Amino acid sequence: MKLNDLLSHQSEWLKDTGPNSNIVISSRIRLARNLEKIPFPHWANQSQSEQSLGQVVKTTQKVNFLKGATVFNLSELDNIDKQFLVERHLMSYEHTQKPDHKAVIVDNEEIVSIMVNEEDHLRMQVMQSGFNIFEAWSIINEIDDALAKELNFAFLLEWGYLTACPTNTGTGMRGSVMLHLPALVMTRAIDRVLAAIAKLSFTTRGLYGEGTQAMGNFFQISNQVSLGLSEDDIVTNINGLIRQVIDQENQARETMLSKNKALLEDRVNRSLGILKSAHIISSQETIELLSMVRLGYDLGMVKNIERSRINELFIITQPAHLQKLESKKLSSQERDVKRAEIVRSKLNI
Amino acid sequence: MKLNDLLSHQSEWLKDTGPNSNIVISSRIRLARNLEKIPFPHWANQSQSEQSLGQVVKTTQKVNFLKGATVFNLSELDNIDKQFLVERHLMSYEHTQKPDHKAVIVDNEEIVSIMVNEEDHLRMQVMQSGFNIFEAWSIINEIDDALAKELNFAFLLEWGYLTACPTNTGTGMRGSVMLHLPALVMTRAIDRVLAAIAKLSFTTRGLYGEGTQAMGNFFQISNQVSLGLSEDDIVTNINGLIRQVIDQENQARETMLSKNKALLEDRVNRSLGILKSAHIISSQETIELLSMVRLGYDLGMVKNIERSRINELFIITQPAHLQKLESKKLSSQERDVKRAEIVRSKLNI
Repeated sequence: MKLNDLLSHQSEWLKDTGPNSNIVISSRIRLARNLEKIPFPHWANQSQSEQSLGQVVKTTQKVNFLKGATVFNLSELDNIDKQFLVERHLMSYEHTQKPDHKAVIVDNEEIVSIMVNEEDHLRMQVMQSGFNIFEAWSIINEIDDALAKELNFAFLLEWGYLTACPTNTGTGMRGSVMLHLPALVMTRAIDRVLAAIAKLSFTTRGLYGEGTQAMGNFFQISNQVSLGLSEDDIVTNINGLIRQVIDQENQARETMLSKNKALLEDRVNRSLGILKSAHIISSQETIELLSMVRLGYDLGMVKNIERSRINELFIITQPAHLQKLESKKLSSQERDVKRAEIVRSKLNI
Repeated sequence: MKLNDLLSHQSEWLKDTGPNSNIVISSRIRLARNLEKIPFPHWANQSQSEQSLGQVVKTTQKVNFLKGATVFNLSELDNIDKQFLVERHLMSYEHTQKPDHKAVIVDNEEIVSIMVNEEDHLRMQVMQSGFNIFEAWSIINEIDDALAKELNFAFLLEWGYLTACPTNTGTGMRGSVMLHLPALVMTRAIDRVLAAIAKLSFTTRGLYGEGTQAMGNFFQISNQVSLGLSEDDIVTNINGLIRQVIDQENQARETMLSKNKALLEDRVNRSLGILKSAHIISSQETIELLSMVRLGYDLGMVKNIERSRINELFIITQPAHLQKLESKKLSSQERDVKRAEIVRSKLNI
């Protein structure tokens, strides 16, 4: 697979095929692993980094789930390509910095990705559409077992898996669920919900992880504690919490429909109207408006546009995706014009 | 003519047929006159008011231009009807208060209207589409002459026509031109232009006269001085001033087109997009958005909507017009929904 092939592929996290996919965008499990006797990436010298990269890449080729996977060496990618992979949630922004001896391994379906030599030697993730955290866990567990047969992971009986940052030590696991919560935001109940989540030691982030704001009413909820609990406990806890958030969002939607249907129809249709007619539009505004259109679709207010088209627009209007589509570097202003053009052409049908 | 007949008639000030009608909406001359030996309306008792009303109404029937004109007695109109006449610029808001012994006389074309017993016994106006102030003066001058043959107007050789408010004494004349100046507003040159106008002793008001703000980039420019100048001088002065404002607006439009065409296309098309899709919309937002669509039409950016349709929407989306169209009283919220419905149906063609 070549990187450009991804352009015509639908990201797992935008497929909208899993359970509760009206509210849950995707479920993701990430495991952090390190190789014994090689320093963590930030402390490793060049030959040590080469060694860890080589070992991981060689081993992944043997694992069932990763046989056809592609290895992208970050030193061979330009900035747009790297940003492109970040936009597809296949790797972190941090991983794009200092690209030497770094790679990301991606399977053809974009379900599995393994960052090599990010903060840890391995950061593997499995993504599933919709509310599907158990399935994600089951897949990544299998991959982890297979890799563990070939690689010696740094592990202490007392501590569990060792990681560069102590917050990941133990299971090395983070489960994250991306939710679309427009009704909780509009009914101003979101702050209460987020505060409750924080008390339960879960963290909330925006569409693009740590440090990004909640754009377009998207919220990514993750466990904070990976030590002292079993993997199954963590997954079960996340699952229970997300179930409650889904219920709250559904209630908020019903309340809005019964109390403010006209207001909601107005917002949804205005959002679609602006997307259909703007000639200059930022990435952020696009996401905000698409969020309203997505809600409108969920509520049966938007009918003659397929959901797959709405989802596609979330990703192809991102800066790197736009530039890949145009096959050239575009300034921010050029992107705003091109973005509006693409949105108009996809929605005026 | 019945008041409801006006609903299907196009207001003179929205016809867009006169010269420079891309920038000048309408030209208007108003004359204030009072009858000798009857106190001004605010000081007149009931029988005196009856007398002035009777005399004026009887006399107007004899004047050539007013033979088929309709007399609307304000005491016979409900609040919506009165507001309806205000929205059509056929009478002032002040005239709707304390309706006893008040009338407005309107010809079938809505070119001439005479308020009886407003602040003065007669407030007559002639409206012309576009930049046509000389024509408006010529028509009203003829009507004034004809009325003066039958009525004794209060007049002193030293002072000219006597009026309730001293600012109108002299010619009793006010010339007003309504302009659409979106480019001067958007290029932030409007404040400089308005300051220059004020220095020349002209006043600027909004779409609905004294005290109303400039909505939708509409500005009504009038002479302030009616004493010490002949009528011809006043008309010539206004004409010269307006000519300059038109030039400034045209220059601002050219500047914007050469420097910010994309930005302009974006604003115009977004405005049209919102109008085509909103489900709740206020009168003010409607006017602001229609203003942008009107500019887009002038600049060739909006093509598949006729100008007459844009103009029609300016008036039929006003509160009283909406209620007349629906033949019932509507709350403010009901109007916002109905307005959006009408706008959508007129623009999605």
